[in-house]
Amino acid sequence: MHTTVLEVGPRDGLQNEERALSPEDRIAFITRCVEAGTRRIEAVSFVNPRRVPQMAGAEEVMAGVPRRDGVSYSGLVLNRRGLDRALAAGVDEVNVVVVASDTFSVRNQGCTTAEMLDAWDGIAAAAAGAGVPAGVTIATAFGCPFEGETPPGRVAEIARRAADAGAFEIALADTIGVGVPAQVRDLARRVREAAPGTPLRYHFHNTRNTGYANALTALDEGAATLDASAGGFGGCPFAPAATGNIATEDLLYALHRSGVETGIDMAAVADTGTWLGGLLGVPATALLGRAGPFPS
Amino acid sequence: MHTTVLEVGPRDGLQNEERALSPEDRIAFITRCVEAGTRRIEAVSFVNPRRVPQMAGAEEVMAGVPRRDGVSYSGLVLNRRGLDRALAAGVDEVNVVVVASDTFSVRNQGCTTAEMLDAWDGIAAAAAGAGVPAGVTIATAFGCPFEGETPPGRVAEIARRAADAGAFEIALADTIGVGVPAQVRDLARRVREAAPGTPLRYHFHNTRNTGYANALTALDEGAATLDASAGGFGGCPFAPAATGNIATEDLLYALHRSGVETGIDMAAVADTGTWLGGLLGVPATALLGRAGPFPS
Repeated sequence: MHTTVLEVGPRDGLQNEERALSPEDRIAFITRCVEAGTRRIEAVSFVNPRRVPQMAGAEEVMAGVPRRDGVSYSGLVLNRRGLDRALAAGVDEVNVVVVASDTFSVRNQGCTTAEMLDAWDGIAAAAAGAGVPAGVTIATAFGCPFEGETPPGRVAEIARRAADAGAFEIALADTIGVGVPAQVRDLARRVREAAPGTPLRYHFHNTRNTGYANALTALDEGAATLDASAGGFGGCPFAPAATGNIATEDLLYALHRSGVETGIDMAAVADTGTWLGGLLGVPATALLGRAGPFPS
Repeated sequence: MHTTVLEVGPRDGLQNEERALSPEDRIAFITRCVEAGTRRIEAVSFVNPRRVPQMAGAEEVMAGVPRRDGVSYSGLVLNRRGLDRALAAGVDEVNVVVVASDTFSVRNQGCTTAEMLDAWDGIAAAAAGAGVPAGVTIATAFGCPFEGETPPGRVAEIARRAADAGAFEIALADTIGVGVPAQVRDLARRVREAAPGTPLRYHFHNTRNTGYANALTALDEGAATLDASAGGFGGCPFAPAATGNIATEDLLYALHRSGVETGIDMAAVADTGTWLGGLLGVPATALLGRAGPFPS
């Protein structure tokens, strides 16, 4: 069995860290991932750099990443201006975030869920016109820090709208790390029904120690791709001191030891997690780098 | 759905911490667990206090714990002398550890697996004579730091021997935190075949971030009881800086949010994890106390 692990460290891993990395350091990070065998990388975000200074210089990053056959770079996009920048910078795919809860959506990107879905329709059409695949990440799909439970029917409806406009992929994101495997199964089934045939990607945070169980459950539910962040960086600003994304190296440990291949060198990613911790001035939350592989 | 969570903090959580807690503090810890609704607690270990000074004063601890209907205190026992102490101290059940790998067994308790199984037969008979239930925990069931992979057939054979001598329960312990859910499923099925009808308990460490996924998988495989440690204390001396047992509060979060009842107050356990960190001088690895409950 094989699955794809998408490295979100250069975007989601870095965007909440206190210390902003230079485009050069981010290129070095991405290069390390490519050399470790990673084939999908969320490299940059085309949001306003005044709002997210850690993501400034997306064009410089894209100009410096190694171009290899089979390696696909994704850029996060929230509006047409972002899409134009992404296309000009030469991304291989764009990732549009639609937040499932209105309160978080307004705070995060200044519009309601319905308004963002309308924006998505326009972005999807323009991306299709440019020949670049566009997908949708449904944020707060498992819960919202302001509204609490996210109605699963609302997530399914967003997935339907995403698929209607031609999303090449739909991602279910547990933005604040509240989901559990039973919820993953329920949501996976509803979204498969709402968007039949569209590959599903899953994005988990380990904020309450359920992230790895959720990822393995998503795989069991047919996930095409799992997001992870080298070192486990990427804490949510709404949950101080909590851990961030599930760590790529720890996910690889679980996958490889379960007989699931990824094509990614786990030890190289663990080294990158430690290296990144040095640059960021905070230790990686990944455990593999501390505990060591098994069998040793 | 309901499951039993056995609090192992007073034994496995504390025995590897640098700072040894007094019997008074351990009684306070156990009392907090009982007041939170915990009904099974591994309270003490009757090993030689010169070898494990953190566990000294087991008799004092047992003399001070609150006796309530439905609360069962377990004591760890490795030989007849330990059993005699446990019976005199008034434990409700004894837990005999049989290590599945010879190298770890000799280092940990000075005898091979086969020799320990012979000792178990004697302990089981004596415990039965005293009317106290005795169970077996199979340590390094998922892997050994010295020998690497543990052959699953070896684990199943130990389970068979345990059941033959009347074990009221068999526990599968991932002593060094290397297991993955696929391995849990495989081992669960083999052990059910080898010891049909004997309730199974599972003991996971989160050393490589697979502990919670393993626990939920064990539940799915029919686990009667899951071990956990308030705050997540209990690192393995062979894996420095790695996290210890899965944290009770984080396990409760995953269970309760999945609709599985435990009868235990999650917030009270999270408070206890934080309180324990203060006593031990090291922060809890549990995440719930930092991230907060959901919905809040």
